[in-house]
Amino acid sequence: MKYGIVGSSGRMGRELIEVFGPENCVATISLEDETILDSPEVIVDFSRPEALKRTLEVCREYRSALVLGTTALTEDHMVQVKELAQSVAVVQGYNFSVGIGVLRMILRQYAPALSEWDVEISETHHIHKVDAPSGTAITLKKEVGRDCPTHSLRMGGVPGDHSVSFANEGEVLTLTHRAISRKVFAMGALQAARFAIGQQPGLYDFEEVVSCALKR
Amino acid sequence: MKYGIVGSSGRMGRELIEVFGPENCVATISLEDETILDSPEVIVDFSRPEALKRTLEVCREYRSALVLGTTALTEDHMVQVKELAQSVAVVQGYNFSVGIGVLRMILRQYAPALSEWDVEISETHHIHKVDAPSGTAITLKKEVGRDCPTHSLRMGGVPGDHSVSFANEGEVLTLTHRAISRKVFAMGALQAARFAIGQQPGLYDFEEVVSCALKR
Amino acid sequence: MKYGIVGSSGRMGRELIEVFGPENCVATISLEDETILDSPEVIVDFSRPEALKRTLEVCREYRSALVLGTTALTEDHMVQVKELAQSVAVVQGYNFSVGIGVLRMILRQYAPALSEWDVEISETHHIHKVDAPSGTAITLKKEVGRDCPTHSLRMGGVPGDHSVSFANEGEVLTLTHRAISRKVFAMGALQAARFAIGQQPGLYDFEEVVSCALKR
Amino acid sequence: MKYGIVGSSGRMGRELIEVFGPENCVATISLEDETILDSPEVIVDFSRPEALKRTLEVCREYRSALVLGTTALTEDHMVQVKELAQSVAVVQGYNFSVGIGVLRMILRQYAPALSEWDVEISETHHIHKVDAPSGTAITLKKEVGRDCPTHSLRMGGVPGDHSVSFANEGEVLTLTHRAISRKVFAMGALQAARFAIGQQPGLYDFEEVVSCALKR
Repeated sequence: MKYGIVGSSGRMGRELIEVFGPENCVATISLEDETILDSPEVIVDFSRPEALKRTLEVCREYRSALVLGTTALTEDHMVQVKELAQSVAVVQGYNFSVGIGVLRMILRQYAPALSEWDVEISETHHIHKVDAPSGTAITLKKEVGRDCPTHSLRMGGVPGDHSVSFANEGEVLTLTHRAISRKVFAMGALQAARFAIGQQPGLYDFEEVVSCALKR
Repeated sequence: MKYGIVGSSGRMGRELIEVFGPENCVATISLEDETILDSPEVIVDFSRPEALKRTLEVCREYRSALVLGTTALTEDHMVQVKELAQSVAVVQGYNFSVGIGVLRMILRQYAPALSEWDVEISETHHIHKVDAPSGTAITLKKEVGRDCPTHSLRMGGVPGDHSVSFANEGEVLTLTHRAISRKVFAMGALQAARFAIGQQPGLYDFEEVVSCALKR
Repeated sequence: MKYGIVGSSGRMGRELIEVFGPENCVATISLEDETILDSPEVIVDFSRPEALKRTLEVCREYRSALVLGTTALTEDHMVQVKELAQSVAVVQGYNFSVGIGVLRMILRQYAPALSEWDVEISETHHIHKVDAPSGTAITLKKEVGRDCPTHSLRMGGVPGDHSVSFANEGEVLTLTHRAISRKVFAMGALQAARFAIGQQPGLYDFEEVVSCALKR
Repeated sequence: MKYGIVGSSGRMGRELIEVFGPENCVATISLEDETILDSPEVIVDFSRPEALKRTLEVCREYRSALVLGTTALTEDHMVQVKELAQSVAVVQGYNFSVGIGVLRMILRQYAPALSEWDVEISETHHIHKVDAPSGTAITLKKEVGRDCPTHSLRMGGVPGDHSVSFANEGEVLTLTHRAISRKVFAMGALQAARFAIGQQPGLYDFEEVVSCALKR
């Protein structure tokens, strides 16, 4: 798979190149610098909103699929993304962890079966994280489908643990996800890239990637 | 719900009565003694194979549904159970924990999505447990659908923990079930009893009870 | 060890008799009823303040040691207990879990070595528990020696989990205690009883029992 | 603290520089290349046995303390290290995690108090780890002071979890250490470096660094 990276010099950019394999990286794009050696099958952009304009141009020019993990996009940005999605496959998401994707699907489907159980959510992140509860914890709570106590621990350098626990008088069922490192998101992007290459044009949510892997 | 208990003086029998509510217990049946005050809607039998004959007679006489958790039944016993199931609803199972039922369904459905992840099972039970791995761990492995290392810890008085862990380079997803006490099985039996009362005659697996709760 | 139980018909009383062994129970004492078959080496009282008067009389009469787990004693009660402690060994405590005792000692000694680490406490108890955080969590925080976030989960029938977690940028050290059942306190009482029988008269804290076991 | 790094271009070397702060790195030494800008107070060597000769020369020349994490040293190497230790402080270790150091001390001191409890060790590492059980698990077992079952899970990219669990009929006490990343060892090296600078000449074990932090 020949791919291009937007923001290749950033922390996430380097992680993506390591996971996708440096040997197949045919394009590196940033606001300052650009090198395109060959036509990329897919462009991966986890950088900043300012970079989006050029990302979209490159995708259009090379008919490359797009994996888009950039956050804080405006509505105007989204209009442009949807326009691109009419001619190529675009996978967008804001948490590219496959495990969290699976956890969300499990909760959505099975939380109703546990509606008489108590449920609480705990999440632990590094002390530099400013928001609490985490965006992912809020998403998980939505999937649980009812309000429940959420505990946020902020400790050391923990990349991100999430735990949803159900209990009744006689038993406890706990679903736990632990991110080992930032690499988890690069691996999700790789799965999204493989998915995108074989797809019809359109805008896909990362969860469809996870859900598709499930059906195989 | 008016119910009867077979083996009411045993450890599990007493647990069942506490969970079902002593005030609605209209029949206690054992090999030595029998008291039937009123017509039971459902008979609950978690006792021994020897007791089955009388259990079946009572069910037939009062047209009571049956929740059957007795283990070590012979094929001949099963023939008789199926015969009864032509006239009343019979729920049979050998692990009446709802949480384990849900865990099995989750694994069956989602383990394929995690086929490229490593998977290992751990279970912890009290030191009096003679078999290792536990029957439940073996069942869980079947639901995972591929062979995987299984670790059995035998420590103190732990009633029963089971944990299935999936991991790749970047993340770990762990599903854990913990039995708090024997009460968990009595609670599963109560759920099975409520299910049985409203059903057409037939032989049902405990998992159908769990699965039915899910659809509501 | 010949022993007597105060409040033998209560839930904790029955647990104590099961753990101490019914065959050596030579005295059962309650407000309504009293049977003393032989001279008890030790009296175990985990009942109510109202029972204390008779407990003290019996100890004095038979020169029995005393293991006292009754809570909500007044100062006046304590004066009487100290008076008894001049002639027999009395072990008093309000959490007879050996594991919690060990955990307290570990924290007191090692938390200073982890003063630059972040620390948080989590505890999970059944939904019937009215106070939060638990008394034990408060005690653990004192042993940690600095203020720290404490998370209280109230779920199903969990008897009592406590977890103290230290983390820095690169690692997490977690100390977890889990009560399996009420039996844990009966076992601590047994250890206290064995300790008391060999001791000089005096008032001992349960922690001395744990600490003494450590030195052996 | 002005410091020098041996093997600065390797994975651990870069980690060390990031944790110690690049601005104070006055010397980088490798088999191919060497830059010494200023007199280093301490040299940090987590590289290979072949590099040791030059490391010792530099320490002698600049009277630098030494933090030595290189493994697979021969007895002949150790003779030379001890010789250096007559003129400067040398801290040696083979696991520079402070948390594991603390865990070892806790076990050594408290495992005797839990001698009647069951004990089992579990450790989880990435699938690239060839040995099982881990060297650290073996060390922990030694501190426990008796033989016990050890379970090794090899899954995905887990940097390294170790768990020692004690249980009796009524309770479970679990001590768990989790390495978040390789950074944990660089942070231990930093603590060792600070320790070494203020010490008399001599050969110190990393555990003395941990133990010294405890006494403060």
